[in-house]
Amino acid sequence: MLVVFGMAKLFGELFEAMHQPAIVGEILAGIVIGPGMLNWVQPNEVLRALSELGVMFLLFRVGLQVKSSELLRVGRTAMLVALLGVLLPFLAGWGILQAMGFPHLEAIFVGAAMVATSVGITAQVLAEAGRMQEPASRIILAAAVIDDVLGLLVLAIVSSLAQGSVNWAGLLTTAVMAVSFTLIVTLLGSRILRRVVPRVEASLASSEAQFNVALVLLFGLALLAVYAGVAAIIGAFLAGMALAETVGERVHDLAHGITELLVPFFLVGIGLNFDVQSFRQPAVLMLALVVLVAAALSKLAGCGLGAWTLGRRGMLQVGAGMIPRGEVGMVVAQLGMGLGIISRPIYSVVVFMAVLTTMMAPPLLKAAFQPAPAPEGEREFRLG
Amino acid sequence: MLVVFGMAKLFGELFEAMHQPAIVGEILAGIVIGPGMLNWVQPNEVLRALSELGVMFLLFRVGLQVKSSELLRVGRTAMLVALLGVLLPFLAGWGILQAMGFPHLEAIFVGAAMVATSVGITAQVLAEAGRMQEPASRIILAAAVIDDVLGLLVLAIVSSLAQGSVNWAGLLTTAVMAVSFTLIVTLLGSRILRRVVPRVEASLASSEAQFNVALVLLFGLALLAVYAGVAAIIGAFLAGMALAETVGERVHDLAHGITELLVPFFLVGIGLNFDVQSFRQPAVLMLALVVLVAAALSKLAGCGLGAWTLGRRGMLQVGAGMIPRGEVGMVVAQLGMGLGIISRPIYSVVVFMAVLTTMMAPPLLKAAFQPAPAPEGEREFRLG
Repeated sequence: MLVVFGMAKLFGELFEAMHQPAIVGEILAGIVIGPGMLNWVQPNEVLRALSELGVMFLLFRVGLQVKSSELLRVGRTAMLVALLGVLLPFLAGWGILQAMGFPHLEAIFVGAAMVATSVGITAQVLAEAGRMQEPASRIILAAAVIDDVLGLLVLAIVSSLAQGSVNWAGLLTTAVMAVSFTLIVTLLGSRILRRVVPRVEASLASSEAQFNVALVLLFGLALLAVYAGVAAIIGAFLAGMALAETVGERVHDLAHGITELLVPFFLVGIGLNFDVQSFRQPAVLMLALVVLVAAALSKLAGCGLGAWTLGRRGMLQVGAGMIPRGEVGMVVAQLGMGLGIISRPIYSVVVFMAVLTTMMAPPLLKAAFQPAPAPEGEREFRLG
Repeated sequence: MLVVFGMAKLFGELFEAMHQPAIVGEILAGIVIGPGMLNWVQPNEVLRALSELGVMFLLFRVGLQVKSSELLRVGRTAMLVALLGVLLPFLAGWGILQAMGFPHLEAIFVGAAMVATSVGITAQVLAEAGRMQEPASRIILAAAVIDDVLGLLVLAIVSSLAQGSVNWAGLLTTAVMAVSFTLIVTLLGSRILRRVVPRVEASLASSEAQFNVALVLLFGLALLAVYAGVAAIIGAFLAGMALAETVGERVHDLAHGITELLVPFFLVGIGLNFDVQSFRQPAVLMLALVVLVAAALSKLAGCGLGAWTLGRRGMLQVGAGMIPRGEVGMVVAQLGMGLGIISRPIYSVVVFMAVLTTMMAPPLLKAAFQPAPAPEGEREFRLG
């Protein structure tokens, strides 16, 4: 624990000193202490749990800063961003592997692994820079929620293809469940909680009652989200959003303490999965680089195009914000490997893509969100 | 996670509503959802890690409220409290099992399992009630630190007895390491940090630099403590104490968020170990009750006597605060079972004693610390 936390902070500080995003340093810390290099730390259950909790609280805190009405207002643009941001990366991944003569199904799985955006990193960067209130940030968040639902469907289709036939009825159920969970919480959540929470709180005798109610809601919606087929972190985000108009500053502060402790485990955890050894073969490294570039450009282009109403700067911001694939891409690749469809080197290629898209996002976002000069200003911003 | 956290809070609130300590409710939640009853949750790696983190942060926060000079001032009384509080329980446990005809070594192990106080619960009760500043609380904390070192030595002696001979040189090394670690951090920690921390902090660019420095120190001292043979939570307490005169309110608040999330896992975790099924045999239940009463009375008497300078009320307070054995007693019993010295039923008896001494402490403490009438007052108190 000390090694993970200490190294994360050390690398983070080093990167800050070099005027690079601390986040990238913390992921790099994971690569360095992980099995690929120093082998001080292996990924394990406990680290995974801490990292999952960390990113849940991160998204919860981001949700606390967002009103659902604001998210719904950008709904149409976000839908376009998410759709194009799913379509182009899938075609890019599938096309590259198909063109290089890989089996049909393996190409489809790699395409699927390139679909889902992992919004944790972007949320962390935007929150730290105090840019959560800008239109592009809203669109990124809304698109990330839709992207998660779309990614779920792509994964369901791909998995059933792998088993021979697509179960359309099952697929429809999945879609309806996921969409209705998300919509119901978004549309009604904050209205209901505004009435219910103060009453529940008043009936509780314990200190910090509001925070405890918030935590129960957070865990509850995360669990429901998983049952509905959506990611737990989307549930956490929706819980935060539903509580945005209800809870006080104290809940922000207490949740902030938790993310300060746990988010480094999330960042290091991403790096831990990266195995440098896999890229000794030049062919694998070449393929990894091609896939990485395609992954970055296809999201940038797809999501950027979807946000064309925002103008060139906004398009770049949204595009850059949607690039990171993080743990989601890895999960798809793991599934493919479990089914015997994705080979070990291709798995490494997907992990390479997932980790490096995540590492490239912070500097890109910083550049895209930066108002021309004033580079020393952004350090003053801080999340509420 | 939701089940553990939600049930803990539910039982906690129920107990508050019945004017009972919430802590007892949270431990009971662990018994109810654990393998012995509903079997919804089994103890596992992740829960154990969360619970350990939780109690570390709890002791860290307690440490933040204590100046080392105040602890040293009560050193002599605390030493007497700790010594008598080790001696009497050991004699009681050993004597009972010896008298009932159990093997010599098994009796010694049960005695050893009754020695070590688990200060987490007491710290939580006193902190929540805002009683950390009273003389009895200081003595409890100081005695708990000494008790931990003494418990370490008792365990070392007992384990080497089990292997046939006592390695006196090794024992001396252990003692010297543990004592010198504790003394050095207590005596020099806060003086050094008062100079070093502001400088380190100034050199860091990140937001919340102070909190991050505190966390690195917390993990670092916890790790060092384990190397020196002391419990990680003692290291966390010493880290808090060393930082008490350096860090600001913000660190308190952020750490508070972490304990709010994690302490329920610690409390539920204690309950999870309790297996109701073991006590179907009346003979086992009887023995468990006898051991429980002996465990409670011997600590109460031993520690109370040690604190005779405080007068009757103070003696009761200190005695009650030292009763809980919690996870420490269970660890000793597990070790004994691993060595084939403690049988399964006797293990259950020790766990029964450990869990129930922990559950009886909060109401006893509440009674001992309560100024005669005014029962609605104590709810206003809050930590930090």
